[in-house]
Amino acid sequence: MIGIFDSGYGGLTVLKACIKALPQYDYLYLGDNLRVPYGSRSPETIQQFSEDALKFFFNKKIPLTIFACNTASAAALPYLQEKYLRTPNVTNKKVLGVIIPVAEKAARRTRNKRIAVIGTRATIASKAYEKELHKIDPSIRVFGVAAPLLTPLIEEGWHHKPEARSILKKYLAPVKDFAPDVLILGCTHYPIMHDVFEDILGPRVHVLDSSTAVADSLADYLKRHPEIESQLTKNADPSKPGTRIFTCTDSPERFSEFAKKFLGIGDATTVQKVQL
Amino acid sequence: MIGIFDSGYGGLTVLKACIKALPQYDYLYLGDNLRVPYGSRSPETIQQFSEDALKFFFNKKIPLTIFACNTASAAALPYLQEKYLRTPNVTNKKVLGVIIPVAEKAARRTRNKRIAVIGTRATIASKAYEKELHKIDPSIRVFGVAAPLLTPLIEEGWHHKPEARSILKKYLAPVKDFAPDVLILGCTHYPIMHDVFEDILGPRVHVLDSSTAVADSLADYLKRHPEIESQLTKNADPSKPGTRIFTCTDSPERFSEFAKKFLGIGDATTVQKVQL
Repeated sequence: MIGIFDSGYGGLTVLKACIKALPQYDYLYLGDNLRVPYGSRSPETIQQFSEDALKFFFNKKIPLTIFACNTASAAALPYLQEKYLRTPNVTNKKVLGVIIPVAEKAARRTRNKRIAVIGTRATIASKAYEKELHKIDPSIRVFGVAAPLLTPLIEEGWHHKPEARSILKKYLAPVKDFAPDVLILGCTHYPIMHDVFEDILGPRVHVLDSSTAVADSLADYLKRHPEIESQLTKNADPSKPGTRIFTCTDSPERFSEFAKKFLGIGDATTVQKVQL
Repeated sequence: MIGIFDSGYGGLTVLKACIKALPQYDYLYLGDNLRVPYGSRSPETIQQFSEDALKFFFNKKIPLTIFACNTASAAALPYLQEKYLRTPNVTNKKVLGVIIPVAEKAARRTRNKRIAVIGTRATIASKAYEKELHKIDPSIRVFGVAAPLLTPLIEEGWHHKPEARSILKKYLAPVKDFAPDVLILGCTHYPIMHDVFEDILGPRVHVLDSSTAVADSLADYLKRHPEIESQLTKNADPSKPGTRIFTCTDSPERFSEFAKKFLGIGDATTVQKVQL
């Protein structure tokens, strides 16, 4: 089973991309909708909440977990890697975040070496994308913009209304001035309004969706790590989809509402409420 | 000392109104910014979070606490009253919510007996205002509208931008059709855009701000309950302001940013982080 963790509902876009690329595996999704949103909280709190989630997957003996949440990947994963995952005697579990695969894809894609990132307040403040991009190529210039209103707009289902477009235009005005050729959508909700981003920025900016980057990176990781791949449960017939389990920490009703509305997946009866 | 509890920052509007009406008392404010917002969570979760807050005030031996948060007052206070406050042997502490004073003021004010309420998803779903208004006068017709985008817009400081006005217009369209003569602002953030509400609804609708209603009700309560009033600490010279203590459960920096921006009160050095 592959674990997918998000602070709430947005990680379902990552799950969807992973299922599309690798349908035969079993997936366990955890959305911490009791304490969502992480993006406006302090780094210490994001670390504490993410640690609770990681322990949930450890207790379920999940060999490989994806931190689908940009905020958790940016503000907590380096800390958790240090604490739990770099000491082989403590655990042989693996955790992949979204920052590294997305930064790698963005660095391969840029020609003018100007990359913009849009995300939550905490993701932008962490400078996590900037740090990873500079490890790959220190000459890349990075511009980050925090856009706290986009997630509420998307969760309210208003992402295609003129007000959402107008708000996004305001957020993107300094991005246009910076003139990047790649914009990283650094929050799992944003792919839902991918078309509006493209429309505002025009054809010269590639809008990079983290969900497909993570799915590609997962497929690549499993090829390179047969010792992890062999521990994953999956459907015996590789052409048939594996099991999907949905868990969340508050109302399962609201969770399945989002799963249906945004992604056409999930069902009220299959979402389990868990305690972290 | 008077306790003021809110899920985050919005209750500062209630504190401000209370300080204006009754400056001589000492106040202790608690904002649960670790777990804000409450308004989109399940009733069980709101009850659990509010119970944690109530115990914080009990432990500090605060004789009188105000639940400034509409969501907590609507979804949790009746449950907590039943569990802790109606059994005199358990505690002699008092808790006042915002729903009853605001409903009383609205009922006194209406002429056409049509009252609209705007608030969080949880406040509207609870029908708490409707229940209180119907206790006072069953012939009053009540219309509720959930407006989850207003709080993020206000917290982002965008409440006077055209996009905020346009979003508020959309929320208020069915309110205008209902043709009330009173609109209850059923969320502590909304007084910050009071002028925009008035502007959209016109002079025939009275926009009722819960913060001043709660302050008036507090003053009245203290007159009627000298046995509680006598337990409150205050400045010996009644013309001089008492002590104000600010506590929150996550970043004090972000807390004092809001306190300064919205209300001109608070200072980074005076906000304490606490655990519930």
